[in-house]
Amino acid sequence: MTPRLVEVRQNVLKKNDELARALRLRFREAGVRVVSLVSSPGTGKTALLERTLTALAKTHRVAALVGDLATENDAARLARSGAPVRQIVTGTVCHLEAQMVETALDGWDLHELDLLFIENVGNLVCPASYDLGEDLRLVLLSVTEGEDKPLKYPTIFNTADAAVLTKIDLAEAVEFDLAAATRNIRAVRPGMRIVAVSAKTGQGMEDLINLVGQVPT
Amino acid sequence: MTPRLVEVRQNVLKKNDELARALRLRFREAGVRVVSLVSSPGTGKTALLERTLTALAKTHRVAALVGDLATENDAARLARSGAPVRQIVTGTVCHLEAQMVETALDGWDLHELDLLFIENVGNLVCPASYDLGEDLRLVLLSVTEGEDKPLKYPTIFNTADAAVLTKIDLAEAVEFDLAAATRNIRAVRPGMRIVAVSAKTGQGMEDLINLVGQVPT
Repeated sequence: MTPRLVEVRQNVLKKNDELARALRLRFREAGVRVVSLVSSPGTGKTALLERTLTALAKTHRVAALVGDLATENDAARLARSGAPVRQIVTGTVCHLEAQMVETALDGWDLHELDLLFIENVGNLVCPASYDLGEDLRLVLLSVTEGEDKPLKYPTIFNTADAAVLTKIDLAEAVEFDLAAATRNIRAVRPGMRIVAVSAKTGQGMEDLINLVGQVPT
Repeated sequence: MTPRLVEVRQNVLKKNDELARALRLRFREAGVRVVSLVSSPGTGKTALLERTLTALAKTHRVAALVGDLATENDAARLARSGAPVRQIVTGTVCHLEAQMVETALDGWDLHELDLLFIENVGNLVCPASYDLGEDLRLVLLSVTEGEDKPLKYPTIFNTADAAVLTKIDLAEAVEFDLAAATRNIRAVRPGMRIVAVSAKTGQGMEDLINLVGQVPT
């Protein structure tokens, strides 16, 4: 990038950080816990979130914001859970920003929520630099993507609080090496908590539900 | 994005287009056909390219440039094909640019090549805006990612010349709907050529080899 682009980019990031900080304070004051999901396209963020929302909606007041470049399909899918859901359409922007989250919350009374999920645009690079004010950031990696991804996209793994291995029901079919994936994740972020789940069979969903119920200290 | 960031970004894109045009002329004069690959992380670009290079190296003079944020693993994998391979490490940049390609070519005599492959960083958003001077851009979509991806990432499908459905050996295990995927690809880009392949079993490799041997008119 040219020096001037770098400088403008730094200003954008600084502004985002300030907004994210304000959002985080607002979430804490309202007593809402905010969990964000980042991953490649096709890792299964929406399927997992649909199952999570459906499970949690029985005992908690949950809602979701979901980012996508072009369609509102994800919001329609997630709305089947019964939880309030809003779509953020980003156009050509490859990540969510704190400003987009703030705008999408307009009119919602955060005091009436226990948990808010934010599903980022499918991208393992761009979302890394943008704090959204969340308490817990989950990075998803599907068993079909390959065990090397943490080494190739270290920044996003570094900004996340826990890793979720998705589509674990396909592990055998794709000869997934769980030990190698764990090693690679923890090479990038030592001690990172890892949960293996399948939104299809329900395997590991209880671990995930426990995880999203915890705020990192 | 702020107006100033948009303006700076437009200048960067314009500069990239000029460089890409110069590269394209240079490739044509040297008689080298250039094929680029774009996709999400984990779609299997490197596995497919390794198999393609190995097959083509028997009859053609082939080489590859491969982009990654952080590691040189892909170049090491591809070098097993026997073809000359160079890694472009992009740092935090989520796409390749024409300038990076030009720099990576330093010292190679293009007249000694028939085919040059360029594997982009795993990303379905950012590479869309950057012409690399290629003759043919392939967008890869693995059957494990879901049939909806062309609708959600339309720009990248629009900038590509053909679509490659990868990991087709897993189609049954993940209940992949080929008709829906085809419909979604062609909703975004009518008439787009689609090839289904498996780098594991070799299914469809002949179609792919034929495709990369053709320059779009």
